[in-house]
Amino acid sequence: MANASDGMNYAPKGKAAPVVQPGEFHFAAMHLDHGHIYGQCNGLIEAGGTLSKVYDTEPERLARFCKTYPQAKAVADPREILEDPAIRLVAAAAVPCDRGPLGCVVMRHGKDYFTDKTPFTSLQHLAEAKRTAAETGRKYMVYYSERLHVESAIAAGDLIQEGRIGRVVQVLGTGPHRHGAKGSRPAWFYRKAQYGGILCDIGSHQLEQFLYYTGNSEATIQAAKVANYRNPDFPEFEDFGDISVIGGNGATGYHRVDWLNPDGLRTWGDGRAVILGTEGYIELRKYIDVTTDNGGDQLILVDHKGEHRMACAGKIGFPFFGRLIRDCIDRSETAMTQTHAFKAAELCLQAQAVAVKVA
Amino acid sequence: MANASDGMNYAPKGKAAPVVQPGEFHFAAMHLDHGHIYGQCNGLIEAGGTLSKVYDTEPERLARFCKTYPQAKAVADPREILEDPAIRLVAAAAVPCDRGPLGCVVMRHGKDYFTDKTPFTSLQHLAEAKRTAAETGRKYMVYYSERLHVESAIAAGDLIQEGRIGRVVQVLGTGPHRHGAKGSRPAWFYRKAQYGGILCDIGSHQLEQFLYYTGNSEATIQAAKVANYRNPDFPEFEDFGDISVIGGNGATGYHRVDWLNPDGLRTWGDGRAVILGTEGYIELRKYIDVTTDNGGDQLILVDHKGEHRMACAGKIGFPFFGRLIRDCIDRSETAMTQTHAFKAAELCLQAQAVAVKVA
Repeated sequence: MANASDGMNYAPKGKAAPVVQPGEFHFAAMHLDHGHIYGQCNGLIEAGGTLSKVYDTEPERLARFCKTYPQAKAVADPREILEDPAIRLVAAAAVPCDRGPLGCVVMRHGKDYFTDKTPFTSLQHLAEAKRTAAETGRKYMVYYSERLHVESAIAAGDLIQEGRIGRVVQVLGTGPHRHGAKGSRPAWFYRKAQYGGILCDIGSHQLEQFLYYTGNSEATIQAAKVANYRNPDFPEFEDFGDISVIGGNGATGYHRVDWLNPDGLRTWGDGRAVILGTEGYIELRKYIDVTTDNGGDQLILVDHKGEHRMACAGKIGFPFFGRLIRDCIDRSETAMTQTHAFKAAELCLQAQAVAVKVA
Repeated sequence: MANASDGMNYAPKGKAAPVVQPGEFHFAAMHLDHGHIYGQCNGLIEAGGTLSKVYDTEPERLARFCKTYPQAKAVADPREILEDPAIRLVAAAAVPCDRGPLGCVVMRHGKDYFTDKTPFTSLQHLAEAKRTAAETGRKYMVYYSERLHVESAIAAGDLIQEGRIGRVVQVLGTGPHRHGAKGSRPAWFYRKAQYGGILCDIGSHQLEQFLYYTGNSEATIQAAKVANYRNPDFPEFEDFGDISVIGGNGATGYHRVDWLNPDGLRTWGDGRAVILGTEGYIELRKYIDVTTDNGGDQLILVDHKGEHRMACAGKIGFPFFGRLIRDCIDRSETAMTQTHAFKAAELCLQAQAVAVKVA
């Protein structure tokens, strides 16, 4: 596991599980604004992808990236990636407000796109991406890392599909994040037009998990809130937000996100999910089992037979990435459907739009 | 600890901490419909109260009570309690819809009243009780047991008052409860007019905790939901509910309650509370630390210095009961203000009234 004290640079590593031969699936990285790009690349490389080129606007950031991935050739002009017929997919972690337009450019060049969350900061960008994906037949996939790159979260999905907790009726997710030292984040992190608001940003992980675990394709935001409790120096920043959501199938979700993670926690956030079913519940302690040395990725399952605990780290893997590569080659949708990726994005934008500001 | 597998008969016992001399504070018990009456009486007796009389309509239930408390004289007519000048307070756990009217009768007889939660099933009853309390100068106190009779919950309040987590910005409470075998509950438990709905009933604990931990005297229900996912045989029953609440001081609450606790859990419910502050957070694992043998009453505190755990059982006590007895004698409000008790009741009734029904 990479730097655990800083969520922005949290880039999980898993077991290599290649689904293609070396050189069979070339991809590139563009715009390294968020450290999640490392997690995106790790996942694709472990699944057999070949990282062949990288483009970024900041030389220092680019140098660091090339040190980690010496196989990637730094290019000075993005067209060297966009117009390279060997490259099938572009992974990117641009400033959030640029992610949608960048994805449309990538898709218009005949390539699939794999962006860091949040995928959009406006419903207009979402609409443009939907239209472009439909017109080009390309994929606009999203790195919803708090499920896709967390082994206990993957295991939870498997248990639910096996019916271990009956019908899922609620997902309760909490996503506390460490803000870090004052001013340690880039400027865009504090500008609402650029980061989109807390529900749009880290709330997107939550709504993706809600849709996935409850098996919903439709949902309505019932209520939402945002606040800036601790960062008055940054008036456009939101350090707290929550969402109540009602799914089309009658299951509901509640999701709280914040940037209030105290310094004394040994990792960047005590992220949890409690998935309540009619026949049991699952609790995920994703990154830490606080006050213990159990490590993260603890899955607790309580059903009619008893209380069970699974330490998932190193045991489950991250099947999303291999499936994504296969989907790009086979034009299938086994990793995540396009509809699902867009619906999670839509819901987080809707939540942000209706959020009541508290203080 | 009494029967841990059944929340209805959960009647904590603590260390005796008398605040009066034997015989100085006489109280009686009336209407034993909910097993919480045992917790109410235990608390008062440990604080020095003298349980002198009991009235109930069901002979078997009365006999069981008298076996537990042989000091209590069973009376055949409630007037033997209501008109006994030696009795200062009446503890009662009537069918929920009868609690308000009974309280008014008790107060009109010049006695303080200590009812099981939920205190009311209608806003009309609340209004009558407010008026009667004001006119008689008597107390209408409520056994919000999930805070008052849980040592870790008391410890959390103390830590918050010491400022250990800064400003409290959210209380996130979950109150799963075991329903038990089909049909094991009394008939009133399934009739909405009698039990009031899940938010009115077990939601009342939650809103009391919200007000207490956030230090609010005013709040607004932002959204609420109820559902009956698993008990279609009982169409008026609700086995799931949740509430989003916004406090007057800008702190918010989210509270989920349910009757879906799986049989395999070793206790009646994995009740939790996460209290988020600007400088840290507290998690309470009230009745069990699931999959461990740590016991219940685990308080976890994470602040800027580190991760801390306190096993609170047997160490904190239940100061509410002694304070209540002193308040009845001294006409003070150290245990709980009347305003607070009524406001929690009002909020749970408002939440129930605005709740969206999902399925």
